[in-house]
Amino acid sequence: MNTIEGLINHRSIRKYQDRPIERDILEEIILAGSRASNTGNMQVYSIINTTDKLLKEQLLPAHFNQRMVINAPNILTFCADFNRFKRWCILNNAEPGYDNFLSFITAATDALLVSQNVAVAAESKGLGICYLGTTIYNADKIIEILKLPKGVVPITALTIGWPEESPLMSDRLPVKAILHEEVYQDYDENSIKEFYNEKEQIEENLNYIKENNKMTLAQVFTDVRYKKKDNEYFSEKLFSVIKSQGFI
Amino acid sequence: MNTIEGLINHRSIRKYQDRPIERDILEEIILAGSRASNTGNMQVYSIINTTDKLLKEQLLPAHFNQRMVINAPNILTFCADFNRFKRWCILNNAEPGYDNFLSFITAATDALLVSQNVAVAAESKGLGICYLGTTIYNADKIIEILKLPKGVVPITALTIGWPEESPLMSDRLPVKAILHEEVYQDYDENSIKEFYNEKEQIEENLNYIKENNKMTLAQVFTDVRYKKKDNEYFSEKLFSVIKSQGFI
Repeated sequence: MNTIEGLINHRSIRKYQDRPIERDILEEIILAGSRASNTGNMQVYSIINTTDKLLKEQLLPAHFNQRMVINAPNILTFCADFNRFKRWCILNNAEPGYDNFLSFITAATDALLVSQNVAVAAESKGLGICYLGTTIYNADKIIEILKLPKGVVPITALTIGWPEESPLMSDRLPVKAILHEEVYQDYDENSIKEFYNEKEQIEENLNYIKENNKMTLAQVFTDVRYKKKDNEYFSEKLFSVIKSQGFI
Repeated sequence: MNTIEGLINHRSIRKYQDRPIERDILEEIILAGSRASNTGNMQVYSIINTTDKLLKEQLLPAHFNQRMVINAPNILTFCADFNRFKRWCILNNAEPGYDNFLSFITAATDALLVSQNVAVAAESKGLGICYLGTTIYNADKIIEILKLPKGVVPITALTIGWPEESPLMSDRLPVKAILHEEVYQDYDENSIKEFYNEKEQIEENLNYIKENNKMTLAQVFTDVRYKKKDNEYFSEKLFSVIKSQGFI
């Protein structure tokens, strides 16, 4: 499988074999991750590799009890990290000026590009991965469990291991729905209907509507999966974490 | 070259041949991008493909006059985009609750994972890319030029084209500097010195110190390249863009 076939073939893996990841493979995919573009070559990120059963059990509720957190041999938590860089500055008579929102976004960007490189490298080795979007929801708890110092904020995490399932590919919007020529081409009723039509017709999605007693698939998102009230609650929490970790 | 060799072989390309990117290749790499993991399969991002000379000239100052913005045949601007998803919700009697900070970070995350997949796919085709970190510095100007509506914020951009240079690989910190076992292992003076030693000895970096009349490489970062005052100025600007685009 060439690189593009590998990217297109991606599916999230939530069930893993009871088999550790060999150390040389782990280090190879982290090395591949570290080659990703980053801001000014400052590499303002860190990766925490957690395999300990007790730690994973502590992480479980922070990740909304998604079972793969326990089931996967490794959890890789990708953090925005200005702590290491600041320490280097201070040791070198340089006064760091990174206690601000731009620096947080810079470091988060670095962390995310690395995470995707690691995901791609892992899959090319036959490993399976699943992102834990919950990382930013309960960043405060993860900071405590993983002992993250000031200047460090968890941005995303991957469960990773040898796959024990081979799920179907999930749907995606057509390329023309996400790609704009020259400038943004805003959507109208017709284009929205056209672009989301396939998604709305998938049996699994039709079942979601029924199971949740909703009228439309969009309502499953707004009323069940990603609710305004929850988003507002977790917004405030995330914002105060960024603050308390020294970025605002 | 297999996938991992390709990732490790990455270098940023700033000089491009005067040759357009074939449409089928462009669509193939965007398709590969769209297969990246994303939040709840909402795909809350958009990509603007800009090739028009006049538009690129307008983008140039927003990207701090980096010449590759003009020199590259294509600029791909990756945006956090809840506009499309919200329109779909409204058309389907669903009330979107995504006017908040968490939704901004969610959409920015989606956009960044896609951008890295596109970068990897492009390089596997022999194309060269360079990230434009300046995208978040002058997001306000880019919003104007690319006509981004409310709910859309540019997060990063790639210059992309057929390479006209083959630069050396840039340095990276050793894997043990960025990888922590089980929980965060904080750094001490010795580990910082060890991990940054290679970077400090690189001739190009020694030259930066001389050219800028500084004592240490760290001072080149804090006093010249990424200054506190600039970071604070651009923090406020970025924050007000996120607000005016409807995310806070």
